[in-house]
Amino acid sequence: MSLHTVHTVADLRAQVSSWRAEGLKIALVPTMGALHQGHISLTTLARQFADRVIVSVFVNPTQFGPTEDFAAYPRTLPADQVILQDAGVELCFAPTVEEMYPSGFATRLHIDNMTDMLCGASRPGHFDGMAQVVSKLLLQALPDVALFGEKDYQQLMVIKRFVTDLNIPVSIIGGPIHREQDGLAMSSRNRYLSAHERQTATTLYQVLTAIADRAARGDAIEPLLETGRQQIAAAGFTPIDYLEIRDAETLDLMQGIINRPARVFVAARLGKARLIDNFAITPHQED
Amino acid sequence: MSLHTVHTVADLRAQVSSWRAEGLKIALVPTMGALHQGHISLTTLARQFADRVIVSVFVNPTQFGPTEDFAAYPRTLPADQVILQDAGVELCFAPTVEEMYPSGFATRLHIDNMTDMLCGASRPGHFDGMAQVVSKLLLQALPDVALFGEKDYQQLMVIKRFVTDLNIPVSIIGGPIHREQDGLAMSSRNRYLSAHERQTATTLYQVLTAIADRAARGDAIEPLLETGRQQIAAAGFTPIDYLEIRDAETLDLMQGIINRPARVFVAARLGKARLIDNFAITPHQED
Repeated sequence: MSLHTVHTVADLRAQVSSWRAEGLKIALVPTMGALHQGHISLTTLARQFADRVIVSVFVNPTQFGPTEDFAAYPRTLPADQVILQDAGVELCFAPTVEEMYPSGFATRLHIDNMTDMLCGASRPGHFDGMAQVVSKLLLQALPDVALFGEKDYQQLMVIKRFVTDLNIPVSIIGGPIHREQDGLAMSSRNRYLSAHERQTATTLYQVLTAIADRAARGDAIEPLLETGRQQIAAAGFTPIDYLEIRDAETLDLMQGIINRPARVFVAARLGKARLIDNFAITPHQED
Repeated sequence: MSLHTVHTVADLRAQVSSWRAEGLKIALVPTMGALHQGHISLTTLARQFADRVIVSVFVNPTQFGPTEDFAAYPRTLPADQVILQDAGVELCFAPTVEEMYPSGFATRLHIDNMTDMLCGASRPGHFDGMAQVVSKLLLQALPDVALFGEKDYQQLMVIKRFVTDLNIPVSIIGGPIHREQDGLAMSSRNRYLSAHERQTATTLYQVLTAIADRAARGDAIEPLLETGRQQIAAAGFTPIDYLEIRDAETLDLMQGIINRPARVFVAARLGKARLIDNFAITPHQED
């Protein structure tokens, strides 16, 4: 079966309806394109839940702030289509901005509590815009499952929150972070890095894993985080938006010694790229 | 077929899935209960579009302001069930507040432009709360059609807006205002009126129809509205929140002579009841 690409909601729904009539299960993987192996690990995971996989490719203007990289964000649909074809994906949905936000559009979402921390603090309005476009994509396709990478862990938690709250009848699945050989989390924004910055970028992974290891063993986290910030700054990252440890479910800030599932989160700028990453902390069992 | 009542989203969805498996079309009529013939005119209209009719009964706390009548709003489920049974409605969905807004709930909707005028001006947050609960009800039931009365005309327009914007796959149908013999628009809040107030309340209908008639004939609307305000005030309404003429689609404020479909809108308080009404203005064709 070869990849089919549609650009309108009507064509997307026609294809989904036809699959539904055959009794097939459907997965959606929303992306902003500039696809890499991290995305393909999600389409592979999607096969465990569905007979047909849809990947949406849409650089959503409403989740970028006025000083952010909306204009510069890579748009590589022909290359994306080759990657999706090779991965066995059945449908690519690539709408225009006008198709998603026609004249008169007026509806906004806001998710309380979870969106004013981490990336929400440095990217005001980002999660509102993300929730807006993801709710639309979910309701346009109405898949059985939708998959999102844990690299954007806060995003995944926000999506689970509003999907539950609004009773959107779709199961949300998180996929593990896909990493380069040296540990750098795969990201479309990695292509902003120079060769030298690309080498430096692995510092984030090294710092996160070191902190996660020590915190899981019962070290108090404040000195770990302070050392981590110094290492990241010394590598040339500036500014460091955050390096924090939070509850893995509620995203509440944690202190002292970690006694329940947590994650360490980082966001920092290196040259033109704002990079984010996170790593699970699973406290060692007491004997 | 007799009326069945469910209180949980799971039971609602089980019933809807069973009907879907039979290939039946489904209509939803969201209400806050305290049912009257206006609601039943909507369930009757629903039969034109669907094989099975669901009426939800839920007094939604998030659309009431802190000084409004949430606590006093009539809750009459047993009487409502008798009315629905007599009307041939198949399913009543009567969730608790906890079922709709469980602990941790955090998602809000906002619709720009349309919600800061008319009732939005005097009831800040009302339409956000209404949109929140209606989006949930639509996504819980996923009916083919949902019906709303034109008495809450601004609400109907706001619902059409966010359903279109979020791509909720449901057709929204407006039902004409159902009136008492003397023209008073039926409303659950009419039961707040004393016998004397009930007689006076018809003034709203008399004023609206007189204005609509003169405006449709080409009279400039400002003097008509000024006279109307005086008549409503003289009848004992206070305060008058608004008496305005707006475009029937965009709700843009209109001035001078009406040359396209419009509506005249009123909201005013009489004793303990805040009453609203509206009436279509269809400009007479020029020869």
